[in-house]
Amino acid sequence: MTDETTDLDARTKDLDRAHVFHSWSAQAALDPMVIAGGSGTTVWDHAGTRYLDFSSQLVNVNIGHQHPAVVRAIQEQAATLATIGPATANLARGEAARRIVERAPDGFEKVFFTNGGADANENAIRLARLHTGRDTVLSTYRSYHGNTGAAIVSTGDWRRIPNRYARGHVHFFGPYLYRTEFWAASPEEECERALRHLERVIQAEGPTTVAAILLETIPGTAGVLVPPPGYLAGVRALADRYGIVLILDEVMAGFGRTGRWFAFDGYDVMPDLITFAKGVNSGYVPVGGVIISDPIAAQFDEEVFPGGLTYSGHPLAAASIIGALDAMADEGIVDHAARVGSESIGPALHALAERHDVIGEVRGEGVFWALELVADRATREPLPAAAMGSLKSGLVARGLLPFVSENRIHVVPPCVVTTAEVDQAAAIYDEAFTDLARAR
Amino acid sequence: MTDETTDLDARTKDLDRAHVFHSWSAQAALDPMVIAGGSGTTVWDHAGTRYLDFSSQLVNVNIGHQHPAVVRAIQEQAATLATIGPATANLARGEAARRIVERAPDGFEKVFFTNGGADANENAIRLARLHTGRDTVLSTYRSYHGNTGAAIVSTGDWRRIPNRYARGHVHFFGPYLYRTEFWAASPEEECERALRHLERVIQAEGPTTVAAILLETIPGTAGVLVPPPGYLAGVRALADRYGIVLILDEVMAGFGRTGRWFAFDGYDVMPDLITFAKGVNSGYVPVGGVIISDPIAAQFDEEVFPGGLTYSGHPLAAASIIGALDAMADEGIVDHAARVGSESIGPALHALAERHDVIGEVRGEGVFWALELVADRATREPLPAAAMGSLKSGLVARGLLPFVSENRIHVVPPCVVTTAEVDQAAAIYDEAFTDLARAR
Ligand SMILES: Cc1ncc(COP(=O)(O)O)c(C=O)c1O
Ligand SMILES: Cc1ncc(COP(=O)(O)O)c(C=O)c1O
Repeated sequence: MTDETTDLDARTKDLDRAHVFHSWSAQAALDPMVIAGGSGTTVWDHAGTRYLDFSSQLVNVNIGHQHPAVVRAIQEQAATLATIGPATANLARGEAARRIVERAPDGFEKVFFTNGGADANENAIRLARLHTGRDTVLSTYRSYHGNTGAAIVSTGDWRRIPNRYARGHVHFFGPYLYRTEFWAASPEEECERALRHLERVIQAEGPTTVAAILLETIPGTAGVLVPPPGYLAGVRALADRYGIVLILDEVMAGFGRTGRWFAFDGYDVMPDLITFAKGVNSGYVPVGGVIISDPIAAQFDEEVFPGGLTYSGHPLAAASIIGALDAMADEGIVDHAARVGSESIGPALHALAERHDVIGEVRGEGVFWALELVADRATREPLPAAAMGSLKSGLVARGLLPFVSENRIHVVPPCVVTTAEVDQAAAIYDEAFTDLARAR
Repeated sequence: MTDETTDLDARTKDLDRAHVFHSWSAQAALDPMVIAGGSGTTVWDHAGTRYLDFSSQLVNVNIGHQHPAVVRAIQEQAATLATIGPATANLARGEAARRIVERAPDGFEKVFFTNGGADANENAIRLARLHTGRDTVLSTYRSYHGNTGAAIVSTGDWRRIPNRYARGHVHFFGPYLYRTEFWAASPEEECERALRHLERVIQAEGPTTVAAILLETIPGTAGVLVPPPGYLAGVRALADRYGIVLILDEVMAGFGRTGRWFAFDGYDVMPDLITFAKGVNSGYVPVGGVIISDPIAAQFDEEVFPGGLTYSGHPLAAASIIGALDAMADEGIVDHAARVGSESIGPALHALAERHDVIGEVRGEGVFWALELVADRATREPLPAAAMGSLKSGLVARGLLPFVSENRIHVVPPCVVTTAEVDQAAAIYDEAFTDLARAR
């Protein structure tokens, strides 16, 4: 550790504290970790302290940090044409769109590009409202859809509450057997009752007023809530029955996270609109978008679509999508995520649950897992915030960058995580849980 | 022109028509121009056809196309760390924030980074509402603020109308002497009456309900509506009188466009929040943000700020901001924009107005100008859409990429435009106006 690198870490922190206003936080108490570089599943600060990134940051770095093919694609496009307006045609943009629709089901031919997940959902909601001529958007309480006007009010978690300035948003409960809202005792019962509840909400709101059902295929931030078999197909049937557009938000779940290109590929369901961001290019350049099914796209052949943004189809973002999707295909990264999930992560987390009573439930697939932590397995009382805080510090101190949300640890490494890294992380989680048990 | 390059242009157009859904348009009739590369004020397609870019795309490429320092900054950051989550501290992010606040007035120390202009305004509105505990946002009918929930309803132009799903937005008329809403005959009268009108709207809405006045310092898309002397100071006085937060939207006007770092530097006014995007890095990487005055920032030292996004403070965007702002300073690009505006563009446009009756008014400064075109100088009847369309085609056919909006041509080249390029463009505009006069 040289003086210079220490100085850079100190300087980074000073500049951050002086000038950077952070998301979703009170600013005074923040003590952000300095990150200067990374590779694959590892990141480091200027002094060279290394961390295993089992967060993928905000669950977006699916291809791992600093994948050389994506870096090269960005560098080459930067040298050719970094930016161009959305009214032009650009080769990188078209090639990126082609690669995205090739991974989508038949009947999805067009992509509207945005800058991230929030404005992807904004534009999907816009399309659904214009397509149906209706207003109401239904989404679940346990969801996150972004921070802009309509996206934040679609969001079901607490972040919606100080931001309720959009109209036309109604929330319902999704399936979540471990903390059932429906007094259910089995996945079948949870599914059936969750669908019944959704239909009752549609009926009570007035079916002809509902434009869209907006759902994370697998609610992510809310706890990797893998839906029970039949639920998504049941939602599709309700959407069909009442003429409602089904928007699947694949911002977090899509592009490899589940071990499939789209999370919904694992279910018997076909959406009308698909929103994406994060995994499509692992966030190397800000980008998101909506994949539009043909009947909805066709409506805007002659009708003006009233949405747009300066950086729609940004060439640098497009180049990074091409680089990321090609590398993911060439290197079998999505299959790897499926395998490492079923062969390493899943077994490791279930083994942890056998050793530690604090783990109430293990959920997930691919590189998309959550450990739900409880003070008491019988009552399922969530582990209190103080214990979560010391658990988090314990993990960081041991060199693991965790994703912690409420009473959960989300185990969400890049898709390229190796079995050895999973073993290393499992040992760190194990020690941290052991410490926690000792302290309680 | 080789077969291969022609093929690339054809392929680009085919991919675009097949898979890219475009902003603010009916899709079927679009015939987008292929752009493959650029340098400074020039862009070209694969076949090598060159165009003078007098649009700066969406008035964002302030530093010109492919500035080597910005390209290098992006390439180097891509090689180091392309992406990192907003909860970390990162040197590029801190250095970008420092450079932004250094150009802002004293009393602005913090930057909240977003992905573009729309979400910059979303978060400024959020800050203003939380700071005042009030709901209503006042903005002008002649404005554009972005395409997301609150931003699009703040927008005053037609694009608001199909998107009215946010509450708490009220519109008023700003000063625009050429088409006065106030029966005014002089800039002084327009200013005084516009302020009186704004105060009456505040009073009629109920002063204690108004959170923010959101204004483009110089309304851009609406026609480069340079405010009369005293107007912005008068708005500031009204904001003070009624405890309202003043948000200046500098997304288009900021970072060099007017020949100043901020457009409001030319007026006797101090905002509470400043929103930016476009010129801060010339759009080489999607980014925007809010510059927050100290009293508003301080509120969130202990209180949680309920907004955020995955790519807030994206390192690649931050690096491009550092590269762009340093190059603009080192090369005197902002001063150049001021000079080329007063010495070349302004005189050239006024000379055109002397030769062509179709020019009803010339407005602007720096590299931010509009020609308002009229069918009749006496009645000021706007030039009809068909004539605007043929004018646009005429300019493109002569190798100039124009910015056309309603009955106006916005003359908005990069800040680095040379006098020779201005002369070349003026000759092209002259020929196109001559053709138009001949055809009518
Ligand atoms: C499911 C989902 N949708 C939308 C978003 C919003 O994306 P962004 O932060 O890019 O606006 C997120 C971000 O975490 C998400 O997880
Ligand atoms: C004044 C102003 N504000 C906001 C925006 C929206 O910015 P973006 O398109 O990056 O969302 C624009 C875009 O043209 C603008 O001109």
